[in-house]
Amino acid sequence: MLSDFKSHIAQNFRFLEGKKLLLAVSGGLDSMVLLDLFWKADANVSIAHCNFQLRGNESDVDANFIESFANQNQIPFFAERFDTHQFASDYKLSTQMAARELRYRWFAELAEQHGFDFILTAHHANDNLETFLINLSRGSGIDGLVGIPAQIDNVVRPLLGFSRNEIEAYAKTNRLEWREDSSNASTKYLRNQIRHQVVPALEAIDPAFLSAFLKTQSHLQQTQSMARDAAVLVYKQVARETHDEIHFNLEKLLRLPNYAAYLYHWLHEFGFTAWDDINDLTSGQSGKQVLSPRYRLVKDRDFLILSSLKDSNEIESFVIEKDQNQVNFPIKLSICKADGVSHVSNNTIFVDAQKIDFPLELRKWRNGDHFQPIGMNGQSKKVGKFFKDERFSILEKERAWLLCSGDRIVWIVGHRADERFKVQTTNPILKITLTQ
Amino acid sequence: MLSDFKSHIAQNFRFLEGKKLLLAVSGGLDSMVLLDLFWKADANVSIAHCNFQLRGNESDVDANFIESFANQNQIPFFAERFDTHQFASDYKLSTQMAARELRYRWFAELAEQHGFDFILTAHHANDNLETFLINLSRGSGIDGLVGIPAQIDNVVRPLLGFSRNEIEAYAKTNRLEWREDSSNASTKYLRNQIRHQVVPALEAIDPAFLSAFLKTQSHLQQTQSMARDAAVLVYKQVARETHDEIHFNLEKLLRLPNYAAYLYHWLHEFGFTAWDDINDLTSGQSGKQVLSPRYRLVKDRDFLILSSLKDSNEIESFVIEKDQNQVNFPIKLSICKADGVSHVSNNTIFVDAQKIDFPLELRKWRNGDHFQPIGMNGQSKKVGKFFKDERFSILEKERAWLLCSGDRIVWIVGHRADERFKVQTTNPILKITLTQ
Repeated sequence: MLSDFKSHIAQNFRFLEGKKLLLAVSGGLDSMVLLDLFWKADANVSIAHCNFQLRGNESDVDANFIESFANQNQIPFFAERFDTHQFASDYKLSTQMAARELRYRWFAELAEQHGFDFILTAHHANDNLETFLINLSRGSGIDGLVGIPAQIDNVVRPLLGFSRNEIEAYAKTNRLEWREDSSNASTKYLRNQIRHQVVPALEAIDPAFLSAFLKTQSHLQQTQSMARDAAVLVYKQVARETHDEIHFNLEKLLRLPNYAAYLYHWLHEFGFTAWDDINDLTSGQSGKQVLSPRYRLVKDRDFLILSSLKDSNEIESFVIEKDQNQVNFPIKLSICKADGVSHVSNNTIFVDAQKIDFPLELRKWRNGDHFQPIGMNGQSKKVGKFFKDERFSILEKERAWLLCSGDRIVWIVGHRADERFKVQTTNPILKITLTQ
Repeated sequence: MLSDFKSHIAQNFRFLEGKKLLLAVSGGLDSMVLLDLFWKADANVSIAHCNFQLRGNESDVDANFIESFANQNQIPFFAERFDTHQFASDYKLSTQMAARELRYRWFAELAEQHGFDFILTAHHANDNLETFLINLSRGSGIDGLVGIPAQIDNVVRPLLGFSRNEIEAYAKTNRLEWREDSSNASTKYLRNQIRHQVVPALEAIDPAFLSAFLKTQSHLQQTQSMARDAAVLVYKQVARETHDEIHFNLEKLLRLPNYAAYLYHWLHEFGFTAWDDINDLTSGQSGKQVLSPRYRLVKDRDFLILSSLKDSNEIESFVIEKDQNQVNFPIKLSICKADGVSHVSNNTIFVDAQKIDFPLELRKWRNGDHFQPIGMNGQSKKVGKFFKDERFSILEKERAWLLCSGDRIVWIVGHRADERFKVQTTNPILKITLTQ
């Protein structure tokens, strides 16, 4: 493992140089080291601190600690209080999942609003080892074992190559201050049990265990990427997509000794879990089927046919009122007034406030839907045709949301705005952002 | 985990019914349970016991224990004493590797000589978990994590779905006797440290850890099989084989975001280890190269070209004397007189003893070698052409051994015999078997 933090970061994260960075800082050991490294290197840093209100007064003390640090050192500071328990209960998430969801949504919003190029978090090698062991205890597949990558989109984790011990040594050498999270010391949580009982046993056997583990994890990442390639290449050989079905050619499929692996890979994202039944289906009678909550897999002579259970007339629909500037469900949108049009993207559109009629509606597409894609001179296009041209998979079509004003589509959310609501310079403007 | 051994075995190992089984029995807990299960089910069992002479008198007591069990119960019994330390030092193997090598070679010989259909060993789920953790501590890739499979060729492991605890409970319920291996109790070996320190810590966190782990391992086996498919499919797109080179098309290769994973997969069996250098080669100057002990990878304009370092005139050659009935290096052959021809296979040939001239020679092939493949009416064929027709990879060609009598090829070992040495009914017969 590298012990020289600065040269490691200079070597591997050169692309961060000169960029506007938002650092996620809890005030704990790891994030204070991250902050110290980048701040002392004269990087353009700002601090984002989440108060999840999970540890009563302690959470507030943490927030104050990092706020005064920021003020003393004149570092731009953002803080937000979250009602994590409420959010977890609203969305049926574990507390940890809720906190993660809230955190990354807010970081993305800050990045969007303030033009940060990258969001930096302080995850380190021990975090990945702990997650690996937790997922092992849950019977996870490779996706649960490969670890958090050093970069996903604009979220970067410069400390992933370092151990907790190395980070602690850095903090002591550089006389940093940090806040201890009292929940770390307890063995209340699975992660803490692994941290305090299993990992020390592994390191007692081999002090270089962590660094060997990182090597294993990088091998697994490669294997995962190859398995994904195989899934795509074999899918092309075996599957054919129609408007709203996927046909798997059984003769071709069953020629593969490991066809069950492919069926698992392709079908699990459609919510299937009854793998034995699906396996029986491959040799079963025509007409037999296996269901997932929203999909059906039917044996039809020489094919397995995947189709949606959704009645195409069923309307799943959500209303957005005039004074709402935040939508939390089924997707997260922020809606605010804007002075002008800037940073248009797939996830952000600007519409003429006078052209839309509240309440707006969020709904799924149906056959026959059409809109006027922006940039096509007002030409009308069927939504189904749009999906086809954009090579949407069946699942992507199912997941797409339409933002509608009356019976007109304003936005295929996250994909394409409609020409009819384009901003006229003199009119008030609404900025609508998909924040998840 | 299944606790009913008999129904599990009846369900999953039905193909063993009515077959002639050789059980590897050390006399320890696991193998005594294996023996009990199959013997009481009236299977056609014989016992093979290896005495590795690693624990002095204790090893002999084990051998006596299991021999008297066999005699009392009239079970056919085979035993062999091995000089494991000597073998390990001769072949530069660890003691454990040497013992494994000796054991499986001997089992294969017994199966060949006595017509056993399957060899059964008593590996269980904890063995796989321990191996997984050991390989994790060594930075292994997926091949080290997927575990021993329940079947490879004729070697079957019926207890893989059971834990050590379950096996022990079975032994106690059924009042079996077994011998404790005193080295099990010590923490001298890595495996024992893992068994006694790490696994209990994992099971303290979650009693169902082992069964979750088995699920993970079966997911990983699927991922491994898919990654191997990808390696083959992408190789077909990117590589072209000539007589003795492989040409990798760089333009196609570098289009893959994970090309390094493929290069690793294809090249590591050729002994390459300098992955950073290989990566540099992809963008380096024409003419640059990276070497492994026996191969060269050269950047040649738009290609990476893999070729052998072997001078084609270099002769790697080993002599077999007239009275030798065993060859241990570079491959393992047994040579004995035979009364007739039976069970001919890729690994066993019968030759006319009067047609061959000792000493025989084992050597690698060279350009220009030719032979008369059996079954082709004495037609002559170049060995290079034979390899090509049989779709040998470069590596397989390199690994092939020729058994020669003077300048005539008797056998492309493990692949094809020569017509000229075919048995004439009246002459004495030699049986030559490849035993590894």
